Amino acid sequence: SANFDQHDSNDILRLVVTTDNHLGFMEKDAERGIDSYISFEEALEIAKEEQVDFILLGGDLFHENKPSRDCLTRCQKLFREHCFGDKPIEFEIVSDEDTNFGHTGFPRANFNDPNLNVSIPVFSIHGNHDDPTGQQNLCALDTLAAAGLINYFGKSNTSCDQGVNIVPVLLQKGNTKLAIYGLGAIKDERLYNMFEKGLVQFIRPAEDPDDWFNIFVIHQNRSAHGKKNYIPETFLPNFLDLVIWGHEHESRIKPEYNEIQRFYVSQPGSSVITSLSESELAQKHIALLKIHKKNFKLEPIPLRSCRQFMMSTVVLADSNINPTDKNVELKIEQFLAKKVEKLVDECHKNRYCYEKQPIKPLIRIKVDYSDYEPINEIRFAQKMVDKVANPRNILQFYRKPTERREEGVL
Amino acid sequence: SANFDQHDSNDILRLVVTTDNHLGFMEKDAERGIDSYISFEEALEIAKEEQVDFILLGGDLFHENKPSRDCLTRCQKLFREHCFGDKPIEFEIVSDEDTNFGHTGFPRANFNDPNLNVSIPVFSIHGNHDDPTGQQNLCALDTLAAAGLINYFGKSNTSCDQGVNIVPVLLQKGNTKLAIYGLGAIKDERLYNMFEKGLVQFIRPAEDPDDWFNIFVIHQNRSAHGKKNYIPETFLPNFLDLVIWGHEHESRIKPEYNEIQRFYVSQPGSSVITSLSESELAQKHIALLKIHKKNFKLEPIPLRSCRQFMMSTVVLADSNINPTDKNVELKIEQFLAKKVEKLVDECHKNRYCYEKQPIKPLIRIKVDYSDYEPINEIRFAQKMVDKVANPRNILQFYRKPTERREEGVL
Ligand SMILES: [Mn+2]
Ligand SMILES: [Mn+2]
Ligand SMILES: [Mn+2]
Ligand SMILES: [Mn+2]
Repeated sequence: SANFDQHDSNDILRLVVTTDNHLGFMEKDAERGIDSYISFEEALEIAKEEQVDFILLGGDLFHENKPSRDCLTRCQKLFREHCFGDKPIEFEIVSDEDTNFGHTGFPRANFNDPNLNVSIPVFSIHGNHDDPTGQQNLCALDTLAAAGLINYFGKSNTSCDQGVNIVPVLLQKGNTKLAIYGLGAIKDERLYNMFEKGLVQFIRPAEDPDDWFNIFVIHQNRSAHGKKNYIPETFLPNFLDLVIWGHEHESRIKPEYNEIQRFYVSQPGSSVITSLSESELAQKHIALLKIHKKNFKLEPIPLRSCRQFMMSTVVLADSNINPTDKNVELKIEQFLAKKVEKLVDECHKNRYCYEKQPIKPLIRIKVDYSDYEPINEIRFAQKMVDKVANPRNILQFYRKPTERREEGVL
Repeated sequence: SANFDQHDSNDILRLVVTTDNHLGFMEKDAERGIDSYISFEEALEIAKEEQVDFILLGGDLFHENKPSRDCLTRCQKLFREHCFGDKPIEFEIVSDEDTNFGHTGFPRANFNDPNLNVSIPVFSIHGNHDDPTGQQNLCALDTLAAAGLINYFGKSNTSCDQGVNIVPVLLQKGNTKLAIYGLGAIKDERLYNMFEKGLVQFIRPAEDPDDWFNIFVIHQNRSAHGKKNYIPETFLPNFLDLVIWGHEHESRIKPEYNEIQRFYVSQPGSSVITSLSESELAQKHIALLKIHKKNFKLEPIPLRSCRQFMMSTVVLADSNINPTDKNVELKIEQFLAKKVEKLVDECHKNRYCYEKQPIKPLIRIKVDYSDYEPINEIRFAQKMVDKVANPRNILQFYRKPTERREEGVL
């Protein structure tokens, strides 16, 4: 990427990118119930501090398709509190706003509504968790858009498999022109087939098509789970410059260059840990993305409010505990408790100096209990409840090398 | 009421009052599904045409405690579309806004939020259909308030039966001072007991208490259904000038003077017909209320978009149909069909010249079928489906004089 400091800031679009915020995740849990809100609010606060031009969301803003009243109310409050205000908007939309947003019932973006004083516009596609349903084909983002809180785009009408035209939102700031193509989540296999049949059309601007920096926001499987159960990067058009890949929760936010397609892919990952699997171990980030003409710079910013998570593997056979000892269960319990406490201590040492980071970490110990019996997990949980945020599922017992891969919520 | 034309308009508060709008009522019904939205939108349009200062809602804005996504989205659109705009606000709140509205997470009324360009503020209490529930004690009005679309007041914290303090919203326009006391719906018996024990306190303004015009918005049973299953008007303090009584769906909007209490009671009634009972026969109205110092004038405005409703009683014994005729069922069917058609014709003759009024009326025929058998209602419905909005429940069969009273949804 180019040295951005030398450019005129009037030509630099600055945005925060975050995906898979899963608002409402585990909302009934006394310990973890507000984790999703805290980290999403941190993302909004970073956007405010960085005085970005806008925020780009990559789907799964909500964890549940029908968010609870509490969740929807909290979310509306967050946007009103952080994205409304006196900061002037320094870019403009040059695409037809009615085409981009007319489906919401309002013919323009919220910041061009003279009745709303928007400081940081939010653009969002939907994910598979918050996709449109029912006779009216509405999703929770439609409710937010009706109130003027977000700009919901990429809602393609793909009901009849006749294919999909992806019409970009076109933005301009000074001499920088940005085309944002978005496609809300569709069943992977359906989209795979549409791509194969050439039924996915990216509608590029007629004027100066090569002058635009082209982003595509997608919310699909990136890694191959089955034959057609993902979208290969090679399916995407190579005029793209940067793909923002939602849905995959692992933080792989640093842009990865695809040599064949000659574009970059950034996978921001979720802003909240939704499964105790390896893919959620990496520190969570949002992106501060700067775009100058055809160049970009993506700066990952860690979410310091994210709950800490550590994982370890233990082989009981290596523990010197005699399987025939009459106190074997107690000894295993003490042995595992020590392991947990060590990890908790490590988490405490590595905390951010940030008051919103929760105290209790998530801990997962994979226990190879070959030659032993599993211990009473309920009693173990009771002993860990003051130290760990997930006392009831710390331990994952397995025998020998066949380790099951845990499927998380994406 | 005084002659209002002689007063300085800068001293006259003008508002639209409507209650029991029941948004989402019968939303799945192909014919009647959007009736509630149409009439509520008409109320908003009247408010706009009349350039009122604000709108006062008396509860049951929503029919369902958890409105569908479609319903909530439509409602948010309606408020944003009709209540935001450039009309200046010509009155001010002189009570502590944080006390009135702080429970919503925002410390002031929406029109005092510099980020929202509100043209017609909406003030609302909740009804029994949209009352707060769950651990967070939230209702659908909280979701609207979070987005800055309405000003939700009268949400008393009455969880522990220690009584309730009703703190008014105090408004001033020129020399007119208005105190609006509001109390969201509570179980009648609980409120009855609290009143009896003197646990309901109206907190009057300390300064010039006698200068205020005092409105109380209540959403409870007005007519005695049981011993304590309603609120007697005599329970209400007699410093009140006008009581807006929600919950009762019958249009009795013309203020009725209570000689003992020396206040007026206006019962606007619902804006949509929710039951085929006598109490819903009267033309629906909203109120245009004008207040000048201690005087008021309430002008009922008919809701021309309301679906027409006629009811009739038929005694088959008076019909000349021979009960032993081999075609007796067919003859009864034809006889009743004629009755229905006559009522439908009458409705068509009496339509408002207003394109939003639905074509098909609601018809209810009470049929005394003594000495006869009831006819096949499914076949009858099929013949009426093109003429009547409620083909499946036109007929209500009864024997002799014991007529059951239908209980509607309030
Ligand atoms: Mn997803
Ligand atoms: Mn996700
Ligand atoms: Mn009611
Ligand atoms: Mn009602």
